[in-house]
Amino acid sequence: MPVLKNIAKLYTCRDEGSQKDIFPIEKAALVWNDGIIRWTGKENELPDEFSHEEFMDAEGGIVVPGFVDCHTHLAFGGWRSEEFEMRLKGKSYLQIAKEGGGILSTVKATREATEDELLNKSLLFLERMKRFGVTCIECKSGYGLTVQDELKQLHVYRRLKEISECTIKTTFLGAHTFPPEYTTNRRGYIDLIINDMLPQVAKENLADFCDVFVEESAFTPAEAREILEAGKKFGLIPKLHADQITASGGAELAAETGAISADHLEQVSETGIQRMAEAGVIAVSLPIASLYTQQPFLDCRQLIEAGVPVAVATDFNPGSAPSYDIHLAMLLGCNHGRLTPDECLKAVTIYAAKAIGADKELGSLESGKKADFLVLDVPDVSFWIYHHNGADFRYIFLKGEQIHP
Amino acid sequence: MPVLKNIAKLYTCRDEGSQKDIFPIEKAALVWNDGIIRWTGKENELPDEFSHEEFMDAEGGIVVPGFVDCHTHLAFGGWRSEEFEMRLKGKSYLQIAKEGGGILSTVKATREATEDELLNKSLLFLERMKRFGVTCIECKSGYGLTVQDELKQLHVYRRLKEISECTIKTTFLGAHTFPPEYTTNRRGYIDLIINDMLPQVAKENLADFCDVFVEESAFTPAEAREILEAGKKFGLIPKLHADQITASGGAELAAETGAISADHLEQVSETGIQRMAEAGVIAVSLPIASLYTQQPFLDCRQLIEAGVPVAVATDFNPGSAPSYDIHLAMLLGCNHGRLTPDECLKAVTIYAAKAIGADKELGSLESGKKADFLVLDVPDVSFWIYHHNGADFRYIFLKGEQIHP
Repeated sequence: MPVLKNIAKLYTCRDEGSQKDIFPIEKAALVWNDGIIRWTGKENELPDEFSHEEFMDAEGGIVVPGFVDCHTHLAFGGWRSEEFEMRLKGKSYLQIAKEGGGILSTVKATREATEDELLNKSLLFLERMKRFGVTCIECKSGYGLTVQDELKQLHVYRRLKEISECTIKTTFLGAHTFPPEYTTNRRGYIDLIINDMLPQVAKENLADFCDVFVEESAFTPAEAREILEAGKKFGLIPKLHADQITASGGAELAAETGAISADHLEQVSETGIQRMAEAGVIAVSLPIASLYTQQPFLDCRQLIEAGVPVAVATDFNPGSAPSYDIHLAMLLGCNHGRLTPDECLKAVTIYAAKAIGADKELGSLESGKKADFLVLDVPDVSFWIYHHNGADFRYIFLKGEQIHP
Repeated sequence: MPVLKNIAKLYTCRDEGSQKDIFPIEKAALVWNDGIIRWTGKENELPDEFSHEEFMDAEGGIVVPGFVDCHTHLAFGGWRSEEFEMRLKGKSYLQIAKEGGGILSTVKATREATEDELLNKSLLFLERMKRFGVTCIECKSGYGLTVQDELKQLHVYRRLKEISECTIKTTFLGAHTFPPEYTTNRRGYIDLIINDMLPQVAKENLADFCDVFVEESAFTPAEAREILEAGKKFGLIPKLHADQITASGGAELAAETGAISADHLEQVSETGIQRMAEAGVIAVSLPIASLYTQQPFLDCRQLIEAGVPVAVATDFNPGSAPSYDIHLAMLLGCNHGRLTPDECLKAVTIYAAKAIGADKELGSLESGKKADFLVLDVPDVSFWIYHHNGADFRYIFLKGEQIHP
């Protein structure tokens, strides 16, 4: 049973108190076996039963839970780097979408890709995400938009779960946008989602969540409500892409439907924030998307002050957030979202885990949870986020196995 | 004589045309020996004299010049991570400075540090900067603010030049701010700079440039003019920290004094831009400082349109820009500075080299220049900046030697 000692500060990040309470243990030790944490506490209180075990030296570094990237669109065909330059030259996301770019060009490329191609590409991304200390991710469908192509994306994630040691949660996002075949037949597409896609997804047990993109250019709150309620009947927990570009009642709907999280929220209304607080919906901030699309950043501080816990994720996707650099998301979450570094750490660990229903198995360093943890060669988390240099990982452990260096 | 072949695209970045012209050579080869580039061109035009040499395979990657970080404050005592949280909570840079934080707290820590301590810390930073593909940096003094402590910083850089293979240019920045001993005796400190520091710096040949921080909280344009003119008599080329927080005539002064570059410029006036264009002053954009201090970003596009070439650098320092992640500076230069990716590449290569007078020896891939180059596993520079994931370097070469992986 390995014991990690000489930890200057172990941030448990357990789900207790407010977002700023991360329960650091100074001069700590961590014990695990079979991929599971068995004990954490002060090194001088290490129980006798562990005192003859194999020791590992953290050399005075800090230990934090593996990061949880709780909002990604991992599997997609093609790329959209040409839109990067279009945006730099002043075109908006909606303008690009109206001209056949945006999501629809990725839908076309994803339909053309084989399942194996999508899998190989996803595996490469996942390997690189692990280098950033990510040990659990959420993956969405939503680039297929036919029964067959939505299932293809979800099958990729199923295979990824089998291959990878990372913990993977899956979201059905058939309601990402209206596919070209249905632009003049919205009802027809909603029926396809409810009558064909959802039953199939449920039958094969392919998703944990059902997500809808509520936006002027996508689904109305009424359409979203219908889809989410149908999803619930199949056991899928609601999630929402809400209030990203316009305030469209997404946060309010998240509260009403009992969504586990509402994501984006850059334009969320005061009422929406209140409803989320009352209903216990987690807010997921996606600052990399704000950076790339030159849109306002979510003021995470405002949500925390109102009693809404905030998670931070990358939103990795080929258009509006083509980076899975979760360290950058954290830096922006502090600089532009006004999170303190401690709050930001909780935003990518326990609250991110809660946003995808994984908090029973990971997201904090507690006995019984997965032994996913990072050893960082810095005095504290504040210094680590602030110094932002990409080279502070001493070790990364995934399910108790050292995967870096 | 090694020959690198199978290069999909070699970006020469030579100093010709406008900022967007980077002269890519498709299906290229690169020949070097003794640390110097001997030939670049199309692989099928490789001269016979090189056809029997040792080949290396770029495997279809792209090749760009090593990056030049043309504005850093590399050697300093202490850190200022506590100010990171203060700024997140809404305190301004000027407020923090007025309360004894900011530059002055670093001055105190730098005075207390030994030359060896500063050297070891700088070496660690430099090693990590190299991982980002940086092969040439500029280093400023300005945290000593006594004759002895300014010399101490400059001696660190001299030793760094002897130890490191990186190309290092040095700037005397005694006029960074007024030290506490002189807050009520500005004339006394200016005399100290002119009569004591500059002669000593020149005598030991410790600096290439003389820089002044022109700002409400630091030096007036008149004071800066006097210092820069005195520096010129000792052979030091003027540089300026200009118009960062307020428009204080810094750009105009840069043009008037024949400065090689004016750096920051977030608040530059229209007149200032015109004068810089006429005088051929390089603009150095430091977007990481804007990010951390939540100040406006420099609109690089506006300067380019007005005929001012733009370089991008990190401004690495312990307070306002505690990261040397030049990839982040590039991403921000595009997203917030409205540079196209091609322009941004030139901003961290040839124009950055010009901003520190190193363009005769490096900054572009041309015969006779240093063999500092990066092989990236991407189809083009646009994709590389856009995908921002920190893991695309196939090889890094510094003076002809492979230093990564």
